[in-house]
Amino acid sequence: MITRRARDAFVAYAAATLAKSGTVVTDEEIAGIEIADYGLSDLEKHGLAILVYVNTDRCCAKELIMMPTQTCPQHRHPPVEGEPGKEETFRCRWGKVFLYEEGEPAADPACKAPAGHEAHYTVWNEIALNPGEQYTLLPNRWHWFQSGPDGAVVSEFSTTSRDHLDEFTDPGVVRETTIDE
Amino acid sequence: MITRRARDAFVAYAAATLAKSGTVVTDEEIAGIEIADYGLSDLEKHGLAILVYVNTDRCCAKELIMMPTQTCPQHRHPPVEGEPGKEETFRCRWGKVFLYEEGEPAADPACKAPAGHEAHYTVWNEIALNPGEQYTLLPNRWHWFQSGPDGAVVSEFSTTSRDHLDEFTDPGVVRETTIDE
Repeated sequence: MITRRARDAFVAYAAATLAKSGTVVTDEEIAGIEIADYGLSDLEKHGLAILVYVNTDRCCAKELIMMPTQTCPQHRHPPVEGEPGKEETFRCRWGKVFLYEEGEPAADPACKAPAGHEAHYTVWNEIALNPGEQYTLLPNRWHWFQSGPDGAVVSEFSTTSRDHLDEFTDPGVVRETTIDE
Repeated sequence: MITRRARDAFVAYAAATLAKSGTVVTDEEIAGIEIADYGLSDLEKHGLAILVYVNTDRCCAKELIMMPTQTCPQHRHPPVEGEPGKEETFRCRWGKVFLYEEGEPAADPACKAPAGHEAHYTVWNEIALNPGEQYTLLPNRWHWFQSGPDGAVVSEFSTTSRDHLDEFTDPGVVRETTIDE
Protein backbone atom coordinates (compact mmCIF):
# COMPACT_ATOMS: atom_id res chain seq x y z
CA MET A 1 0.00 0.00 0.00
CA ILE A 2 1.27 3.47 -0.85
CA THR A 3 -0.14 6.93 -0.27
CA ARG A 4 -1.77 8.94 -3.05
CA ARG A 5 0.98 11.48 -2.49
CA ALA A 6 3.77 8.91 -3.02
CA ARG A 7 2.02 7.65 -6.14
CA ASP A 8 1.60 11.13 -7.59
CA ALA A 9 5.22 12.03 -6.78
CA PHE A 10 6.45 8.96 -8.69
CA VAL A 11 4.24 9.85 -11.69
CA ALA A 12 5.69 13.39 -11.64
CA TYR A 13 9.22 11.94 -11.45
CA ALA A 14 8.40 9.59 -14.35
CA ALA A 15 7.10 12.46 -16.49
CA ALA A 16 10.19 14.57 -15.79
CA THR A 17 12.55 11.65 -16.44
CA LEU A 18 10.83 10.77 -19.73
CA ALA A 19 11.24 14.41 -20.78
CA LYS A 20 14.91 14.35 -19.77
CA SER A 21 15.39 11.19 -21.84
CA GLY A 22 13.89 12.89 -24.92
CA THR A 23 10.87 10.58 -24.96
CA VAL A 24 7.80 12.51 -26.10
CA VAL A 25 4.54 11.35 -24.53
CA THR A 26 1.06 12.85 -24.29
CA ASP A 27 -0.59 14.26 -21.17
CA GLU A 28 -3.13 11.47 -21.45
CA GLU A 29 -0.33 8.90 -21.40
CA ILE A 30 1.20 10.54 -18.31
CA ALA A 31 -2.20 10.40 -16.59
CA GLY A 32 -2.40 6.69 -17.44
CA ILE A 33 0.99 5.71 -15.99
CA GLU A 34 0.74 2.68 -13.72
CA ILE A 35 2.69 2.82 -10.47
CA ALA A 36 3.59 -0.63 -9.12
CA ASP A 37 4.76 -1.06 -5.53
CA TYR A 38 4.48 -4.87 -5.72
CA GLY A 39 2.56 -4.78 -2.47
CA LEU A 40 5.82 -4.12 -0.62
CA SER A 41 4.82 -0.58 0.39
CA ASP A 42 8.24 0.97 -0.12
CA LEU A 43 8.49 2.60 -3.53
CA GLU A 44 12.04 3.82 -3.07
CA LYS A 45 13.13 0.24 -2.63
CA HIS A 46 10.81 -1.74 -4.95
CA GLY A 47 8.74 -0.21 -7.68
CA LEU A 48 8.21 0.73 -11.26
CA ALA A 49 6.39 3.39 -13.27
CA ILE A 50 4.91 1.76 -16.37
CA LEU A 51 3.66 3.58 -19.46
CA VAL A 52 1.98 1.10 -21.81
CA TYR A 53 2.03 2.19 -25.46
CA VAL A 54 0.23 -0.87 -26.77
CA ASN A 55 -0.76 -4.28 -25.42
CA THR A 56 -2.86 -6.43 -27.76
CA ASP A 57 -3.37 -10.18 -27.73
CA ARG A 58 -0.23 -10.45 -29.87
CA CYS A 59 2.37 -7.88 -28.82
CA CYS A 60 3.19 -5.13 -26.37
CA ALA A 61 5.43 -2.08 -25.97
CA LYS A 62 6.04 -0.03 -22.82
CA GLU A 63 8.35 2.44 -21.19
CA LEU A 64 9.53 1.56 -17.69
CA ILE A 65 10.70 4.47 -15.55
CA MET A 66 12.74 3.81 -12.42
CA MET A 67 13.91 5.95 -9.53
CA PRO A 68 17.59 5.63 -8.55
CA THR A 69 18.51 2.11 -7.34
CA GLN A 70 14.91 0.98 -7.43
CA THR A 71 14.23 -2.74 -7.90
CA CYS A 72 11.64 -4.67 -9.86
CA PRO A 73 11.40 -7.86 -7.75
CA GLN A 74 12.40 -11.29 -9.10
CA HIS A 75 9.70 -12.89 -11.24
CA ARG A 76 9.05 -14.97 -14.33
CA HIS A 77 6.42 -15.14 -17.07
CA PRO A 78 4.98 -18.69 -17.22
CA PRO A 79 3.31 -20.32 -20.24
CA VAL A 80 -0.30 -19.24 -20.82
CA GLU A 81 -2.92 -21.46 -22.47
CA GLY A 82 -0.37 -23.54 -24.35
CA GLU A 83 1.62 -20.48 -25.47
CA PRO A 84 5.16 -19.96 -24.17
CA GLY A 85 5.41 -17.23 -21.55
CA LYS A 86 6.09 -13.60 -22.35
CA GLU A 87 9.28 -12.89 -24.28
CA GLU A 88 10.70 -9.45 -23.60
CA THR A 89 13.45 -7.21 -24.85
CA PHE A 90 14.70 -4.53 -22.48
CA ARG A 91 16.34 -1.54 -24.15
CA CYS A 92 17.94 1.09 -21.95
CA ARG A 93 17.07 4.59 -23.21
CA TRP A 94 18.42 6.74 -20.40
CA GLY A 95 20.33 6.19 -17.15
CA LYS A 96 21.45 2.65 -16.46
CA VAL A 97 19.82 -0.63 -15.57
CA PHE A 98 21.21 -3.92 -14.31
CA LEU A 99 19.25 -6.98 -15.33
CA TYR A 100 19.72 -10.28 -13.51
CA GLU A 101 18.56 -13.59 -14.90
CA GLU A 102 19.28 -17.32 -14.73
CA GLY A 103 22.82 -18.38 -15.64
CA GLU A 104 26.36 -17.92 -14.40
CA PRO A 105 26.22 -15.67 -11.30
CA ALA A 106 28.32 -12.48 -11.41
CA ALA A 107 31.43 -12.82 -9.23
CA ASP A 108 31.03 -9.27 -7.99
CA PRO A 109 27.53 -8.02 -8.85
CA ALA A 110 26.97 -4.27 -9.22
CA CYS A 111 23.68 -4.41 -7.27
CA LYS A 112 22.51 -5.68 -3.91
CA ALA A 113 19.16 -7.30 -3.28
CA PRO A 114 16.85 -4.94 -1.35
CA ALA A 115 17.65 -5.15 2.37
CA GLY A 116 15.47 -7.60 4.23
CA HIS A 117 14.47 -9.36 1.01
CA GLU A 118 17.77 -11.04 0.13
CA ALA A 119 16.37 -14.58 0.25
CA HIS A 120 14.05 -13.83 -2.68
CA TYR A 121 16.82 -12.87 -5.10
CA THR A 122 18.32 -16.11 -6.39
CA VAL A 123 19.45 -15.36 -9.97
CA TRP A 124 22.62 -13.34 -10.41
CA ASN A 125 23.68 -13.56 -14.06
CA GLU A 126 24.26 -9.83 -14.59
CA ILE A 127 23.58 -7.87 -17.76
CA ALA A 128 24.45 -4.16 -17.47
CA LEU A 129 22.57 -1.95 -19.93
CA ASN A 130 23.62 1.58 -20.82
CA PRO A 131 21.58 3.79 -23.18
CA GLY A 132 21.34 2.13 -26.59
CA GLU A 133 22.01 -1.34 -25.18
CA GLN A 134 19.40 -4.08 -24.98
CA TYR A 135 18.85 -7.69 -23.97
CA THR A 136 16.18 -10.21 -24.95
CA LEU A 137 14.91 -12.39 -22.13
CA LEU A 138 13.43 -15.75 -23.07
CA PRO A 139 10.06 -16.88 -21.62
CA ASN A 140 9.66 -18.34 -18.15
CA ARG A 141 13.14 -17.43 -16.89
CA TRP A 142 13.52 -15.90 -13.45
CA HIS A 143 14.75 -12.31 -13.62
CA TRP A 144 14.81 -9.01 -11.74
CA PHE A 145 16.31 -5.62 -12.42
CA GLN A 146 17.60 -2.58 -10.60
CA SER A 147 18.37 0.91 -11.87
CA GLY A 148 21.69 2.69 -11.44
CA PRO A 149 22.31 5.80 -9.30
CA ASP A 150 20.50 8.18 -11.71
CA GLY A 151 17.44 6.00 -12.31
CA ALA A 152 16.52 4.71 -15.76
CA VAL A 153 14.15 4.78 -18.69
CA VAL A 154 13.86 1.35 -20.28
CA SER A 155 11.79 0.42 -23.34
CA GLU A 156 10.23 -3.02 -23.21
CA PHE A 157 9.23 -4.72 -26.47
CA SER A 158 7.41 -7.99 -25.88
CA THR A 159 4.68 -10.46 -26.59
CA THR A 160 1.38 -9.84 -24.78
CA SER A 161 1.76 -8.56 -21.25
CA ARG A 162 -0.34 -10.32 -18.58
CA ASP A 163 1.22 -8.93 -15.41
CA HIS A 164 -1.36 -10.55 -13.12
CA LEU A 165 -0.11 -14.01 -14.19
CA ASP A 166 3.55 -13.31 -13.33
CA GLU A 167 5.12 -15.55 -10.70
CA PHE A 168 7.22 -13.85 -8.01
CA THR A 169 9.86 -15.44 -5.80
CA ASP A 170 8.88 -13.29 -2.82
CA PRO A 171 5.57 -14.58 -1.38
CA GLY A 172 5.01 -11.07 0.00
CA VAL A 173 4.56 -9.62 -3.48
CA VAL A 174 1.08 -8.57 -4.57
CA ARG A 175 0.96 -7.37 -8.17
CA GLU A 176 -1.94 -4.97 -7.59
CA THR A 177 -0.95 -1.67 -6.00
CA THR A 178 -3.33 -0.33 -3.37
CA ILE A 179 -3.56 3.41 -2.78
CA ASP A 180 -4.19 4.52 0.79
CA GLU A 181 -6.59 7.43 0.26
CA MET B 1 18.84 0.23 -57.75
CA ILE B 2 20.65 2.96 -55.86
CA THR B 3 24.28 3.98 -55.68
CA ARG B 4 26.47 3.15 -52.70
CA ARG B 5 26.85 6.88 -52.23
CA ALA B 6 23.07 7.46 -52.04
CA ARG B 7 22.77 4.57 -49.61
CA ASP B 8 25.54 5.86 -47.38
CA ALA B 9 24.12 9.40 -47.44
CA PHE B 10 20.74 8.11 -46.26
CA VAL B 11 22.40 6.12 -43.46
CA ALA B 12 24.25 9.28 -42.37
CA TYR B 13 21.00 11.25 -42.48
CA ALA B 14 19.29 8.52 -40.43
CA ALA B 15 22.05 8.59 -37.80
CA ALA B 16 21.88 12.39 -37.54
CA THR B 17 18.09 12.38 -37.36
CA LEU B 18 18.02 9.68 -34.67
CA ALA B 19 20.47 11.79 -32.66
CA LYS B 20 18.31 14.89 -33.17
CA SER B 21 15.28 12.92 -31.95
CA GLY B 22 17.12 11.92 -28.76
CA THR B 23 17.17 8.23 -29.71
CA VAL B 24 20.41 6.64 -28.50
CA VAL B 25 21.70 3.86 -30.75
CA THR B 26 25.04 2.07 -31.01
CA ASP B 27 27.55 2.39 -33.85
CA GLU B 28 26.90 -1.26 -34.64
CA GLU B 29 23.19 -0.52 -35.01
CA ILE B 30 23.93 2.41 -37.33
CA ALA B 31 26.13 0.13 -39.45
CA GLY B 32 23.26 -2.37 -39.64
CA ILE B 33 20.59 0.10 -40.82
CA GLU B 34 18.68 -1.22 -43.82
CA ILE B 35 18.01 1.21 -46.65
CA ALA B 36 14.95 0.31 -48.72
CA ASP B 37 14.37 1.91 -52.11
CA TYR B 38 11.54 -0.53 -52.95
CA GLY B 39 13.21 -1.13 -56.28
CA LEU B 40 11.96 2.26 -57.46
CA SER B 41 15.47 3.76 -57.64
CA ASP B 42 14.51 7.19 -56.33
CA LEU B 43 15.19 7.43 -52.60
CA GLU B 44 14.03 11.01 -52.25
CA LYS B 45 10.62 9.93 -53.46
CA HIS B 46 10.21 6.39 -52.07
CA GLY B 47 12.31 4.95 -49.33
CA LEU B 48 12.90 4.13 -45.71
CA ALA B 49 15.82 3.71 -43.34
CA ILE B 50 15.06 0.81 -40.99
CA LEU B 51 16.84 0.06 -37.71
CA VAL B 52 15.63 -3.27 -36.34
CA TYR B 53 15.98 -3.56 -32.56
CA VAL B 54 14.54 -7.05 -32.34
CA ASN B 55 12.65 -9.41 -34.63
CA THR B 56 11.97 -12.87 -33.24
CA ASP B 57 9.35 -15.41 -34.31
CA ARG B 58 6.94 -13.67 -31.92
CA CYS B 59 7.48 -9.91 -31.92
CA CYS B 60 9.45 -7.06 -33.42
CA ALA B 61 10.50 -3.47 -32.74
CA LYS B 62 12.15 -1.01 -35.14
CA GLU B 63 12.86 2.63 -35.74
CA LEU B 64 11.89 3.96 -39.18
CA ILE B 65 13.72 7.07 -40.31
CA MET B 66 12.38 9.11 -43.22
CA MET B 67 13.70 12.00 -45.27
CA PRO B 68 11.33 14.94 -45.82
CA THR B 69 8.18 13.98 -47.79
CA GLN B 70 9.49 10.49 -48.45
CA THR B 71 6.96 7.72 -49.05
CA CYS B 72 6.77 4.08 -48.03
CA PRO B 73 4.70 2.62 -50.89
CA GLN B 74 1.24 1.12 -50.37
CA HIS B 75 1.37 -2.45 -49.09
CA ARG B 76 -0.25 -4.97 -46.75
CA HIS B 77 0.86 -7.83 -44.54
CA PRO B 78 -1.03 -11.00 -45.50
CA PRO B 79 -1.67 -14.02 -43.24
CA VAL B 80 1.32 -16.37 -42.88
CA GLU B 81 0.98 -20.10 -42.22
CA GLY B 82 -2.43 -19.79 -40.62
CA GLU B 83 -1.43 -16.79 -38.50
CA PRO B 84 -3.03 -13.40 -39.15
CA GLY B 85 -0.70 -10.97 -40.92
CA LYS B 86 1.59 -8.58 -39.12
CA GLU B 87 -0.08 -6.19 -36.67
CA GLU B 88 1.83 -2.95 -36.25
CA THR B 89 1.73 0.15 -34.10
CA PHE B 90 3.36 3.27 -35.52
CA ARG B 91 4.47 5.81 -32.93
CA CYS B 92 5.84 9.12 -34.14
CA ARG B 93 8.92 10.12 -32.14
CA TRP B 94 10.15 13.13 -34.09
CA GLY B 95 8.97 15.14 -37.10
CA LYS B 96 5.61 14.19 -38.53
CA VAL B 97 4.16 11.28 -40.46
CA PHE B 98 0.91 10.83 -42.34
CA LEU B 99 -0.41 7.29 -42.41
CA TYR B 100 -3.02 6.24 -44.96
CA GLU B 101 -5.08 3.09 -44.65
CA GLU B 102 -8.41 1.58 -45.68
CA GLY B 103 -11.51 3.50 -44.61
CA GLU B 104 -13.16 6.84 -45.22
CA PRO B 105 -10.92 8.81 -47.60
CA ALA B 106 -9.74 12.24 -46.42
CA ALA B 107 -11.62 15.06 -48.18
CA ASP B 108 -8.43 17.08 -48.50
CA PRO B 109 -5.44 14.82 -47.81
CA ALA B 110 -2.23 16.42 -46.55
CA CYS B 111 -0.08 14.28 -48.88
CA LYS B 112 0.09 13.55 -52.55
CA ALA B 113 0.98 10.17 -54.02
CA PRO B 114 4.46 10.22 -55.55
CA ALA B 115 4.30 11.69 -59.06
CA GLY B 116 3.96 9.09 -61.78
CA HIS B 117 2.79 6.46 -59.28
CA GLU B 118 -0.66 7.85 -58.43
CA ALA B 119 -2.53 4.76 -59.64
CA HIS B 120 -0.90 2.61 -56.96
CA TYR B 121 -2.19 4.69 -54.05
CA THR B 122 -5.78 3.67 -53.46
CA VAL B 123 -6.36 4.06 -49.69
CA TRP B 124 -6.78 7.57 -48.32
CA ASN B 125 -8.07 7.31 -44.77
CA GLU B 126 -5.60 9.76 -43.22
CA ILE B 127 -4.04 9.50 -39.75
CA ALA B 128 -1.65 12.37 -38.95
CA LEU B 129 0.89 11.54 -36.26
CA ASN B 130 2.88 14.14 -34.36
CA PRO B 131 5.54 13.19 -31.78
CA GLY B 132 3.96 11.16 -28.99
CA GLU B 133 1.03 10.08 -31.16
CA GLN B 134 0.50 6.54 -32.41
CA TYR B 135 -1.83 4.31 -34.38
CA THR B 136 -2.29 0.54 -34.44
CA LEU B 137 -2.84 -0.96 -37.88
CA LEU B 138 -4.69 -4.27 -38.05
CA PRO B 139 -3.31 -7.16 -40.16
CA ASN B 140 -3.75 -7.39 -43.92
CA ARG B 141 -4.99 -3.84 -44.43
CA TRP B 142 -3.61 -1.76 -47.29
CA HIS B 143 -1.58 1.18 -46.03
CA TRP B 144 1.19 3.59 -46.94
CA PHE B 145 2.84 6.52 -45.23
CA GLN B 146 4.65 9.74 -46.01
CA SER B 147 6.72 11.98 -43.77
CA GLY B 148 6.15 15.69 -43.30
CA PRO B 149 8.47 18.51 -44.46
CA ASP B 150 11.13 17.83 -41.78
CA GLY B 151 11.21 14.04 -42.16
CA ALA B 152 10.33 11.70 -39.30
CA VAL B 153 11.45 9.12 -36.78
CA VAL B 154 8.74 6.53 -36.19
CA SER B 155 8.89 3.59 -33.79
CA GLU B 156 7.19 0.45 -35.01
CA PHE B 157 6.04 -2.15 -32.46
CA SER B 158 4.68 -5.28 -34.12
CA THR B 159 4.35 -8.99 -34.43
CA THR B 160 7.09 -10.75 -36.42
CA SER B 161 8.31 -8.78 -39.43
CA ARG B 162 8.57 -10.73 -42.68
CA ASP B 163 9.10 -7.91 -45.17
CA HIS B 164 9.73 -10.26 -48.12
CA LEU B 165 6.13 -11.52 -47.84
CA ASP B 166 4.54 -8.05 -48.00
CA GLU B 167 2.18 -7.41 -50.90
CA PHE B 168 2.56 -4.10 -52.75
CA THR B 169 -0.01 -2.36 -54.94
CA ASP B 170 2.66 -1.14 -57.36
CA PRO B 171 3.88 -4.08 -59.48
CA GLY B 172 7.13 -2.17 -59.98
CA VAL B 173 8.08 -2.60 -56.31
CA VAL B 174 10.90 -5.00 -55.46
CA ARG B 175 11.44 -5.33 -51.71
CA GLU B 176 15.16 -6.07 -52.01
CA THR B 177 17.33 -3.01 -52.56
CA THR B 178 20.17 -3.43 -55.03
CA ILE B 179 23.30 -1.33 -54.65
CA ASP B 180 25.01 -0.26 -57.84
CA GLU B 181 28.68 -0.61 -56.86
